[in-house]
Amino acid sequence: MEEINALRGADAPEVVLDLQHGHVADVVEHLNEQEPDQAADVLAGLPYDRAVELLDQPEFDDAADVVSSMPIDRAAKLLSGMSADRATDLLSEIDEPQRSRLIARLDHETRSAVSRLARYPEGSAGAIMTTEVVSVPANWTVAATLDYIRQVEKSRETIYTICLLHPETGALLQTATLRRLITTDPAAPVLTAARHSRPITVTPTTDQEETARLFSKYDLLAVPVVDERHHVVGIVTVDDIIDAIFQETTEDVQKFGGMEALDEPYMEISFLRMMKKRAGWLSALFIGEMLTATAMQHFETELEKAIVLTLFIPLIMSSGGNSGSQATSLIIRALALGEIRLRDWWRVALRELPSGLSLGLVLGTLGFARITAWQMLGLHDYGQFWFLVALTVGAGLVGIVTFGSMTGSMLPFVLKRLGFDPASASAPFVATLVDVTGLVIYFSIASVILHGTLL
Amino acid sequence: MEEINALRGADAPEVVLDLQHGHVADVVEHLNEQEPDQAADVLAGLPYDRAVELLDQPEFDDAADVVSSMPIDRAAKLLSGMSADRATDLLSEIDEPQRSRLIARLDHETRSAVSRLARYPEGSAGAIMTTEVVSVPANWTVAATLDYIRQVEKSRETIYTICLLHPETGALLQTATLRRLITTDPAAPVLTAARHSRPITVTPTTDQEETARLFSKYDLLAVPVVDERHHVVGIVTVDDIIDAIFQETTEDVQKFGGMEALDEPYMEISFLRMMKKRAGWLSALFIGEMLTATAMQHFETELEKAIVLTLFIPLIMSSGGNSGSQATSLIIRALALGEIRLRDWWRVALRELPSGLSLGLVLGTLGFARITAWQMLGLHDYGQFWFLVALTVGAGLVGIVTFGSMTGSMLPFVLKRLGFDPASASAPFVATLVDVTGLVIYFSIASVILHGTLL
Repeated sequence: MEEINALRGADAPEVVLDLQHGHVADVVEHLNEQEPDQAADVLAGLPYDRAVELLDQPEFDDAADVVSSMPIDRAAKLLSGMSADRATDLLSEIDEPQRSRLIARLDHETRSAVSRLARYPEGSAGAIMTTEVVSVPANWTVAATLDYIRQVEKSRETIYTICLLHPETGALLQTATLRRLITTDPAAPVLTAARHSRPITVTPTTDQEETARLFSKYDLLAVPVVDERHHVVGIVTVDDIIDAIFQETTEDVQKFGGMEALDEPYMEISFLRMMKKRAGWLSALFIGEMLTATAMQHFETELEKAIVLTLFIPLIMSSGGNSGSQATSLIIRALALGEIRLRDWWRVALRELPSGLSLGLVLGTLGFARITAWQMLGLHDYGQFWFLVALTVGAGLVGIVTFGSMTGSMLPFVLKRLGFDPASASAPFVATLVDVTGLVIYFSIASVILHGTLL
Repeated sequence: MEEINALRGADAPEVVLDLQHGHVADVVEHLNEQEPDQAADVLAGLPYDRAVELLDQPEFDDAADVVSSMPIDRAAKLLSGMSADRATDLLSEIDEPQRSRLIARLDHETRSAVSRLARYPEGSAGAIMTTEVVSVPANWTVAATLDYIRQVEKSRETIYTICLLHPETGALLQTATLRRLITTDPAAPVLTAARHSRPITVTPTTDQEETARLFSKYDLLAVPVVDERHHVVGIVTVDDIIDAIFQETTEDVQKFGGMEALDEPYMEISFLRMMKKRAGWLSALFIGEMLTATAMQHFETELEKAIVLTLFIPLIMSSGGNSGSQATSLIIRALALGEIRLRDWWRVALRELPSGLSLGLVLGTLGFARITAWQMLGLHDYGQFWFLVALTVGAGLVGIVTFGSMTGSMLPFVLKRLGFDPASASAPFVATLVDVTGLVIYFSIASVILHGTLL
């Protein structure tokens, strides 16, 4: 009871960070605020296991710098103790020639794991998996498996998913959960604790987004990564998947906002790096948008004759961009969730055509009503042919909103088909595409409706 | 060995869906494609435990309809077997008076759990938690705890996180993981298997996004939900968090695209419901954008005198919108990740002011160069005062891009301060805000630079 009361005491408000026993995430937050050499000193003062545990946290942003500023033998020893996936990430951030020197000093097992993991492209299951898997021959008993788990527990990222292998070929037969193991008769064969359905697996090249969808669908805590011979090469755990989802979402939102993904927290990225990420796309969009000036020049005589038409250009352009942005966000997300695939493009087109027309009718009616009302109420005089102007604006809106919805919904498919990330179909990108065409649509409709009157 | 080979055989390509032993997620996918009464028939043909397991999947979209089309006693029996959080969700989708009738028939434990869970607002930890927690007095031994876990395992959503309670007050002292339990001496007190740091907890009203961040930071599989007296009222598991993140991300992306969140898959939502979600915001933005026409009317005399100014209106407006959209996406995401908080608004403003100015200078230079080049190369004649026009466009761009970045970055803070979701600061919303002011900035700069020449 005393121990319990002592523990309660630790809940008191003035909590001093305990480097040795405090929560790793909190200590990591503290280390991130230190200079790398200071943080290296702190780690040097901690037991080996604790230092490894801290470096193992993906949230330890400066870990690569910290490791670089240590004596190389100590750094290699710490890296050898870390989980292979995290050690690989960390090494990838260290510059040559120090990286090669460190790799040469790793213990054999870590070195071969690191060289295997470094091969997989960013964003793949291979790149976020770890090689420390619990796997046992499928003809073992539950008791033997549990004993084995207790022996290897320290060096495994997860022990909640156990791979059961074919005793001769070593191929993955089934997975079992620790939950089932501890509730199954210890003397029973371990296969009786397995799921009775095919094991869910991914390959090293499976996209991390696709892998995340499997976790969501099957409520997984870990998924084995298998090669073409169905041999287990690693395991992806749910905490890595959560980090991957957060990272992927941030990238998608930033791309959708019309910029390169930052890859660093907003408040931490240097001013120049942020400028680079933003100025590139902004300039590209600007150059694309220059075509609007060209289109306007083309219609300059119409503009001079009917200056009243210019009044509604911003309104019409923005409506096209907005409807396009809606459609794009819908399709990007549906593609990301796997609700639709590339081959569904025509089904989407068949939905967006009536959607765009209906939305266009709504806005066209509003636009027509706005001009009529202002004219009737004497708020503004749109001239002798105000009715035809109102008609032009109304019809222009129907055309432009329909075109915006179609362009916005098809762009993600086009990008995906060309091998780009559909999430690059940003709101500003769609708006730019729609703006130029929107002007052409508007002036074409005007030249038909206003022919012989204003034009 | 025979058993093993038999299992391998199940891997053959022609897989027939096994309703009884197949993966729940696959069977659920199959049931979602059936009419509700057909699905109810399928469930009626399965063992009770299996039917409960299937209904327990959040991915079972039509579960509420399926349950509604069953005899009421059978429905109540199935609901009583389900996890309390899922049963609550399902009941919330059933219309009155059938809901009350079903609730009245639930067993006592489920009924009280459901009535407690239904109180918590959508998007809170309380709404996604389950009440089936494994908790033991902190003075038990490891062996006693493991025995208890084996007894209650069937009815608990997770057994990987165990709550250790003060033996007298019942308050949460610590959490232990199953991993630590099975590797700790069975005769030792269970507290020795606990973390040696304060337990990570949330309250029922903690936002699910905030809860997800805790999972990411501390690599959790589950987090206890405690009341103000630190008593455990439920537990949020990682699979519910993954579903919550996916749902939240979809909502955020759709809102950022300038519409209400669909809350249903794109291909499944009815045409009319989708129209409602899209037409509302689109019309609101359109009405806001009408101010551009008012602004243009205000400058009509300037327009008539200097028609050349109209040529660059689309270019200038879109640049303001694009820079605003970039800034908004950055800030929305930084707020969602907890990188910045409401009180950081002035630090963000201090970053965005120089960012906006720099980006504005880049685009302003491009715009100035474009006009100069076209004039020099004879591609278009911007008139006698082309140099002043180019200067006006360049200076206009600096002003508008700066204004766009500032507006885009501050809008999420303003919305959050007013109690709205900062993610409602959509790209089209920002563009609309920037468009009107952008026109005013452009014409004001023009009237200064072109005073005495064109104007």
